[in-house]
Amino acid sequence: MGKLRFAAALTPQGWVENVTVETAADGTIAALATSGESGRYDGIALAGMPNLHSHAFQRGMAGLAERRGTAEDSFWTWREVMYAFLHRLTPEDVEAIAAEAYVEMLETGFTALGEFHYLHHAPAGAAYADPAEMAGRVVAAARTAGIGLTLLPVFYAHGGFAGAPLGPAQLRFGSDPEGYAALLQAARPHLADLPEARLGIAPHSLRAVTPETLAEVLPLAAGGPVHIHAAEQEKEVADCLAALGARPVEWLLNNAPVGPGWCLVHATHMTEAETKALARSGAVAGLCPVTEANLGDGLFPAPDFLGAGGAFGIGSDSNVLIDAAEELRLLEYGQRLRHRRRNVLGTPDRSTGRHLYERACLGGAAALGRPVGALAPGRRADILVLDEEHAALAGKKGDALLDSFLFAGGRKAVRDVYVGGDRLVEAGRHRRRDEVAARFGATMKRLLA
Amino acid sequence: MGKLRFAAALTPQGWVENVTVETAADGTIAALATSGESGRYDGIALAGMPNLHSHAFQRGMAGLAERRGTAEDSFWTWREVMYAFLHRLTPEDVEAIAAEAYVEMLETGFTALGEFHYLHHAPAGAAYADPAEMAGRVVAAARTAGIGLTLLPVFYAHGGFAGAPLGPAQLRFGSDPEGYAALLQAARPHLADLPEARLGIAPHSLRAVTPETLAEVLPLAAGGPVHIHAAEQEKEVADCLAALGARPVEWLLNNAPVGPGWCLVHATHMTEAETKALARSGAVAGLCPVTEANLGDGLFPAPDFLGAGGAFGIGSDSNVLIDAAEELRLLEYGQRLRHRRRNVLGTPDRSTGRHLYERACLGGAAALGRPVGALAPGRRADILVLDEEHAALAGKKGDALLDSFLFAGGRKAVRDVYVGGDRLVEAGRHRRRDEVAARFGATMKRLLA
Repeated sequence: MGKLRFAAALTPQGWVENVTVETAADGTIAALATSGESGRYDGIALAGMPNLHSHAFQRGMAGLAERRGTAEDSFWTWREVMYAFLHRLTPEDVEAIAAEAYVEMLETGFTALGEFHYLHHAPAGAAYADPAEMAGRVVAAARTAGIGLTLLPVFYAHGGFAGAPLGPAQLRFGSDPEGYAALLQAARPHLADLPEARLGIAPHSLRAVTPETLAEVLPLAAGGPVHIHAAEQEKEVADCLAALGARPVEWLLNNAPVGPGWCLVHATHMTEAETKALARSGAVAGLCPVTEANLGDGLFPAPDFLGAGGAFGIGSDSNVLIDAAEELRLLEYGQRLRHRRRNVLGTPDRSTGRHLYERACLGGAAALGRPVGALAPGRRADILVLDEEHAALAGKKGDALLDSFLFAGGRKAVRDVYVGGDRLVEAGRHRRRDEVAARFGATMKRLLA
Repeated sequence: MGKLRFAAALTPQGWVENVTVETAADGTIAALATSGESGRYDGIALAGMPNLHSHAFQRGMAGLAERRGTAEDSFWTWREVMYAFLHRLTPEDVEAIAAEAYVEMLETGFTALGEFHYLHHAPAGAAYADPAEMAGRVVAAARTAGIGLTLLPVFYAHGGFAGAPLGPAQLRFGSDPEGYAALLQAARPHLADLPEARLGIAPHSLRAVTPETLAEVLPLAAGGPVHIHAAEQEKEVADCLAALGARPVEWLLNNAPVGPGWCLVHATHMTEAETKALARSGAVAGLCPVTEANLGDGLFPAPDFLGAGGAFGIGSDSNVLIDAAEELRLLEYGQRLRHRRRNVLGTPDRSTGRHLYERACLGGAAALGRPVGALAPGRRADILVLDEEHAALAGKKGDALLDSFLFAGGRKAVRDVYVGGDRLVEAGRHRRRDEVAARFGATMKRLLA
């Protein structure tokens, strides 16, 4: 049992002051109390933010694609840069890059993540001796960083709709359903010594699977989460209409058991009917505002979706920038710019920042299948502690303080971060930062030499 | 004479390596050389970024308006919150808040600023014994922080178009042309011991001046810069059309000597003809992407304006968040979201980040009337030094390194910042941070108690 004391904490019952959080040996919260024990109370405690969508290796190419190539630069030209980068990566490289990404996530307040992991094989497409070699590297990186992991090995069978063959750059991702089942099976031992890890499945997208192979792999979820990219790009929507006679979200809602336990990543391009149906389904929309801006994807129909009670969480996706606060800020700012008004995603009873933070925590927890996302007994003691002495927070309390973190302070206001009651980040620095950054730096210098 | 050595530097001739920057006693750059003197070369040097538009006191209300009030929240409801906040401020408060804002600016790489200063008088509207009391506080804050100051006292005569009287909350801003001339005169002695300070004028907007009073105050610029808010809000455009028979930018272009030395702040809502005419005029567009997103203003027509050769710079405006990199990132991301493609503001010959950084430096320097914005002999030695060992920058060079700062690393990659050859920020911390933050914190706690 441990006791953590905070000047204030945001709980499901609202803000409370002078809080003692009792943590159990298994890393969960045993109790929260406001009774005045002796001891120093400082810092503002929030539930750690789940990061529901990450491709960790892409952290290594951050900044390498911000240059216009052909006249019309798009998601698809970015993907060519990404494919060229990943082609070179060894398992050791992936582990070094993922560890850096996960340390950065923790330093900004992400305490758990869903790794949508598709880089499985050697460059020519052959499986490694251990088919889950790369998955093991992701697990090792999560262990090094201490972040909560929901591993989502990706099923990627085709290079486009209608069962198109994989392109040469996609051979490292590819599996048939049998190979995918074997890959999942091989991944389990890697997770064994990370007791809080979860395993789910991730059919990559309706581009990369057929209706038949999707149906084949869904039972492999075995109660774990199911994540799929959907409707990120307008071209993808058009191609899906042509191939399957329906838009991606529409097709999934009508042809797959989309509901609680599912996460539709992006879901950017939806009709009003799709938006409302997805909200009703109980699935989580996996929003990645920084990446969606970087890739020019477009804006999620957030007012309609949130208004209809839809669940959402946030993901750092391409990891071009890792910053939990900036994801939520950009989610709201995109809507403000589109609708030309303020506090688009706020509610009358709580501030915009609090509303977004609380919903993203709960939606992210649901998407990752983890008992996290709120400071409450029985949930894991994943805690983000803000420095109330940071200039942007000075003098503020309650919702205004949280808004000041998200809109005015950003990650510099993050003081400490706990996962399962263990303090991994202190004064803004992860305790293994130096070692992880050194290994990452050496890897990048070699890769980019 | 001092010598600063950097591993690389971005100069008007492009990237150079192992650079020695010789600084003169007056704070300018005497020479740049790449010849290999002995000594350690590290860090990546960029010109410091000018911040062409700031209302420093608003830093104190950052985070206090991110809550939905009435059903439709807008710029105008935000303005009510802002007026209520500023009503309480004493000169001491303004100095404490401005010093914090300026220290934060320096820590993110802003090395000079234009303070668009309109909070002149006591709460009931009476002038202070020294009519430039408040201007003096802004100057004192700039001196404390060491940032280069272009002071832009605001002429604010009316509460709306057609000469509407000031509202009660606007009495602290108001002047007639004679009072404004006196205010400018009183400001000069405050600037005397800040040798690099510049003085300009700032008719607030076409809402706050009439064509007649605008014509009266323009000669007071006396060769200094002229800044004016224009076309930030759609309602402002409609009101201007009704009152003056033209849109704000159109009216200014046709009725005022808009050209070099002028800065039109925001210029968000322009027709294509206005956009091209403003670009041709030689005036600088003062873009404030973070504030314009926060206030739901809308998106500047950047592709047309930049394509027509228009000059622009960036401003932190409301200071809701102070971050030079995030301003440029959001400028580009807003365009990507609107146009659904990538690298909208890039060019074929240089990366998007470099293109935006270089143009914002030169436009900002022009708007502030300061010899800054490039690492070149004769310009001031205002230098932002990136930490090439920062994870987001590891292994990268040239444009990709700068892109990685702007898109992937952000302010955490800023190591040192020099103004006039003097290192004010070291390892990301301003040398007076503790003292300034303590005073700001005490001020905020009192104001918000």
